[in-house]
Amino acid sequence: MDERVYTLTEKIDEDLEHNSLSETERQGISNELKNLIPKDSVVLAQINPVSGDIKGNAKKALKWIKWAQSIDVNAVIFPEMYLIGYPIGDFIDRFPLIVEENIEWLNALASSVRGKTKVIIGFAEFNKEKYGKKYYNSVAVLSDGKIEKVIRKTLLPNYAEFNDYRHFEPSEINSESRITKIGNKNAGIIVCEDGWNDKDFFDKNLYKQDPVQTVVEEQHPDYLINCSSSITRAKKEQLKHNMLSFAAKKHKTPIIYVNQTGSGECMSFEGASRVYDNTGKLIAMAKSYQEQFFIVSPTEGGQINPLPKGLEKTLNSQKAFTLDHEPDLERTYLTIVQSIRDYFKKTGFKRAVLGLSGGLDSTVSAVLLADALGAENVFGISMPSKITSTESKNDAKELANNLGINFTEISIKDMYDSTRTKFDEVFADIEQKWDCRYKESFTNDNIQARSRSLILWGIANEFGSCLPIATSDKSELYMGYATINGDMSGGFAPLADVSKTKLFALARWLNKNRNIKNAIPESIIAKRPGAELAINPKTGKPLLAEEALMPYEFLDEVIWRVENLQQTIGDMMKEEFLHEKHMKEQKNPISKEQKLEWLQKFFRRMSTALYKWSIMPPSPIVDARSINKTEYKQPIISSKINYQKTSFEEKLKELNKI
Amino acid sequence: MDERVYTLTEKIDEDLEHNSLSETERQGISNELKNLIPKDSVVLAQINPVSGDIKGNAKKALKWIKWAQSIDVNAVIFPEMYLIGYPIGDFIDRFPLIVEENIEWLNALASSVRGKTKVIIGFAEFNKEKYGKKYYNSVAVLSDGKIEKVIRKTLLPNYAEFNDYRHFEPSEINSESRITKIGNKNAGIIVCEDGWNDKDFFDKNLYKQDPVQTVVEEQHPDYLINCSSSITRAKKEQLKHNMLSFAAKKHKTPIIYVNQTGSGECMSFEGASRVYDNTGKLIAMAKSYQEQFFIVSPTEGGQINPLPKGLEKTLNSQKAFTLDHEPDLERTYLTIVQSIRDYFKKTGFKRAVLGLSGGLDSTVSAVLLADALGAENVFGISMPSKITSTESKNDAKELANNLGINFTEISIKDMYDSTRTKFDEVFADIEQKWDCRYKESFTNDNIQARSRSLILWGIANEFGSCLPIATSDKSELYMGYATINGDMSGGFAPLADVSKTKLFALARWLNKNRNIKNAIPESIIAKRPGAELAINPKTGKPLLAEEALMPYEFLDEVIWRVENLQQTIGDMMKEEFLHEKHMKEQKNPISKEQKLEWLQKFFRRMSTALYKWSIMPPSPIVDARSINKTEYKQPIISSKINYQKTSFEEKLKELNKI
Repeated sequence: MDERVYTLTEKIDEDLEHNSLSETERQGISNELKNLIPKDSVVLAQINPVSGDIKGNAKKALKWIKWAQSIDVNAVIFPEMYLIGYPIGDFIDRFPLIVEENIEWLNALASSVRGKTKVIIGFAEFNKEKYGKKYYNSVAVLSDGKIEKVIRKTLLPNYAEFNDYRHFEPSEINSESRITKIGNKNAGIIVCEDGWNDKDFFDKNLYKQDPVQTVVEEQHPDYLINCSSSITRAKKEQLKHNMLSFAAKKHKTPIIYVNQTGSGECMSFEGASRVYDNTGKLIAMAKSYQEQFFIVSPTEGGQINPLPKGLEKTLNSQKAFTLDHEPDLERTYLTIVQSIRDYFKKTGFKRAVLGLSGGLDSTVSAVLLADALGAENVFGISMPSKITSTESKNDAKELANNLGINFTEISIKDMYDSTRTKFDEVFADIEQKWDCRYKESFTNDNIQARSRSLILWGIANEFGSCLPIATSDKSELYMGYATINGDMSGGFAPLADVSKTKLFALARWLNKNRNIKNAIPESIIAKRPGAELAINPKTGKPLLAEEALMPYEFLDEVIWRVENLQQTIGDMMKEEFLHEKHMKEQKNPISKEQKLEWLQKFFRRMSTALYKWSIMPPSPIVDARSINKTEYKQPIISSKINYQKTSFEEKLKELNKI
Repeated sequence: MDERVYTLTEKIDEDLEHNSLSETERQGISNELKNLIPKDSVVLAQINPVSGDIKGNAKKALKWIKWAQSIDVNAVIFPEMYLIGYPIGDFIDRFPLIVEENIEWLNALASSVRGKTKVIIGFAEFNKEKYGKKYYNSVAVLSDGKIEKVIRKTLLPNYAEFNDYRHFEPSEINSESRITKIGNKNAGIIVCEDGWNDKDFFDKNLYKQDPVQTVVEEQHPDYLINCSSSITRAKKEQLKHNMLSFAAKKHKTPIIYVNQTGSGECMSFEGASRVYDNTGKLIAMAKSYQEQFFIVSPTEGGQINPLPKGLEKTLNSQKAFTLDHEPDLERTYLTIVQSIRDYFKKTGFKRAVLGLSGGLDSTVSAVLLADALGAENVFGISMPSKITSTESKNDAKELANNLGINFTEISIKDMYDSTRTKFDEVFADIEQKWDCRYKESFTNDNIQARSRSLILWGIANEFGSCLPIATSDKSELYMGYATINGDMSGGFAPLADVSKTKLFALARWLNKNRNIKNAIPESIIAKRPGAELAINPKTGKPLLAEEALMPYEFLDEVIWRVENLQQTIGDMMKEEFLHEKHMKEQKNPISKEQKLEWLQKFFRRMSTALYKWSIMPPSPIVDARSINKTEYKQPIISSKINYQKTSFEEKLKELNKI
């Protein structure tokens, strides 16, 4: 398709967002576009809905529809569940009103649809049968003032963040009902997961049916349309591309895939809507992490926008743990920034306040917040205690200055002292009754973290639309090395799914790739992480995190193996870790005993961290798997799970004791 | 069955828990029992598993099995998923090792099974087919050293707390595979939800198949066995009783229903295992909220233990909102006490610390903790600020004294002052940059709540196995009238599903029904709730909660209508609330404007409370519906959901503006 088409559609994108064009300009663009685009063109509405804001979504859709009508395309295609917004969760269960409203808005929209342009749009539908769940996950075809037909989703994902089967009844495939005429072509419509169950592509299938196969074999459509709300994930894009390409080729049928963009709470959608031709070749792809009014021809294609680095990586590159996070940093950055921006916008917050310690977690959080919300909406507070080094204070200040965010410094020394005095008093009383006082404790460390959080929440109470930010990272959360009501506390936790070794790489990437280069002082990246909450009696210096835990290089590989390979202690003892290899090269090898001790420490600390995870604020999900409670339904149920296998003989021996 | 049987089984229960009998005593009991019980007796193992502690569960099961063998019953029947523990959630997804281990333990157990007594026991099984989810929810029949057969669950609940379909593949009914010989009778085995889909009993069915019907029609078993893990809930017991009785009568087939007891995180199981004869008559029922080695005869029955008040109430009594919480208080009490006890025991905690304000929430929490953990394991801390009245301080002290829990008092005045000084400093800096400072804020109120929580978490850091308790109640959580890092913060929240009007009734019930009568000072129950965090400028006295919110009588009815009837503002405007009726009787009627204002306030405050709910600690679920995140998958997604219906014409008008 002509390059000029995409220059003009950028103006449409701008107009859709900011109402930036006059009627005459609009008319000019329409007229020019009409002559440039192929006859069978359709628009992929790669759009960002607000869950539950049905009125807002409907009004927004109509703007897109009017633009599509003005250029006379055959259809404009919206993502799955667009009208009610996805994710919507149990809201539709508790407030059926919003489903009623989305049906009424659908009818109202239908009555506005005139001319040759059909509208294909996702919504939630009531199930009125005697059997099954309350709703269907459906797509409506709107045409000439009416709802022409409704297609219902058959395959309902119920893993990771997805809970479709919780709310929706799976529909029969009903291949005939899925066909609609678009221009002079027959299109077959499927909904997201419906397109993810090819029996030749996957070794193991989650479902027995394959709607794609059935629709193609029974109806021979000219092309397929997949209305999706599909999340971004490390590892996922290459799988998605291979699978869609495979299916288009196998069935000799082009596939138009429309995906939403934007973030809803912990779920992030990357867009990257696209078209494959009937040989499986990618012939058009929309931008990632932004809305786009994307014109394609199912036969001739359209522009192919590049994916951000990290979205395009191969499956192979994921098969082993690596410290080279580079290939995934752009995707990570875009996912988190989109998550922060949309969480604030959709929940009605505007400003963020966070503690700046001069450490890596708060530093990277500040950069991401500045990029998501605008530097003027971020306040960084340096809150030194007596342990805080001058260097840390200076680093925090320099960072804020480089970023252009607001900054102030306030000592927590007095708060710490008055709290500590009270603690001495109350602990003396308690140890009269309870004989379980620890000789060494984290009490003092945590007073500092909690006093800081007290200040941040105070600011949120005092200033409008302001949320404090929890800065804990994934490595430390796995270890429970994070303070409840301290660094774990906030309205949003941008780094909860970013491990420490990746965070270092992300910091360097930000310095290299942001508009303002090197905003992060080198000294912050260079120093070894430590919370500066306690002094290590052995060194006389602030305790380093790796002294308290284990080397991050090792820890992050354990996390990776647990999340991606479901390995146990026994499995991991058999494999060589990167850290082991590095230490061997440095002639300082890790002993088997040391390795086992670290692994056992990992599972022990993880077990006691579970209850902390349950009270983490919302956070973006970035990795293939996370500890985010939206994705990981982890009950806090037992301190006695054994993560190390025992033999059958040992089991018999145990039973013989009874 | 002979009364003596149950006197003897109480000794068995005691022995199973505390190993209290000598070998000779055991022999004596076995010999006596063997002669007393009918020939076709079986044992219902109403037992409390620890999720994930497979070794512990297996060893415990063997003790029960040995007792059953010693009295020569035909079978001992354990609940659904007993061996791995229920709920187990995504642990089986992340750590397949524990499923492997539960299979090995099952085999080890099987090899210990000798003699005529069969063992029927729930476990998690791998699905090795090409299609479907990773696991089956299965029941094994162990006999003579081997696994005789495996029955797989067909109907998989995926609503409220249940996520079965997330992990398990639904099995075909396979009626033949479900039959096992027990003595000289044929028993048909079903698993929990398999028994909950009778097409004549329910108006609307969640599934198309009815395993009960199929098994009965195809196999004509002499009786049915239902292995369950079924939760306690307001409204549920009467439904369960009616349904099981209906099915037994309809199919002219006795039903043995075995349920687990105990709590796993937020899910509570009440036990009350039972037998219905082939006319639908209840002929045996085990105790509630405790383990029981329960001997029954499928033909002759057994003891019928009474249900706690509240479990037995009729369906009708639930159809309207009532302030008479009396019928549900015993069940509420037992559910919460069991939840606290098991949460602490299963996660490895032992002691609880909480702030005692002299208010109702902390008071009732303290009583429940004392009963669940033992008074010696509870520390109540009175933490007065300058607003705290002498009366409140005295009430707290008197309560602690009456309960026999540990108690101390410590003023937070100095902590408040040093924090407030810092706030003045930092706020002055911030308002230089941000013009959104509130004229009135909750800042000072929250300093107090957060300073108290800081002390509680400090104690948890300093003393072993100690958890702070979050005391927020359901009414205030709905309103967001609870402080993050304050009264909302803790390791467990016992009252998060108890509304304020019910809490008053519970306080009176506790005074009347506990061993120690009137432990709660009357003055605590008599005073109107207020957090004593701020002064009401209008009255000059501490602000009362109802002044800040709305009358609790009204608020609690809104919550009830939203949760139980899914009503909208429009629906509720049409109905008369109890509070309206009472005020009318008092010649002080509520105006329509006032009512609408309260309703709109409710939804507005609820919307902004969502993010607070997401970081609530675990809590028991007590009501028919809750805001507990285990049960209510509520995404924090939009501040723009409209809970008030608009007309179709208004919608068209909105679209015409585009």
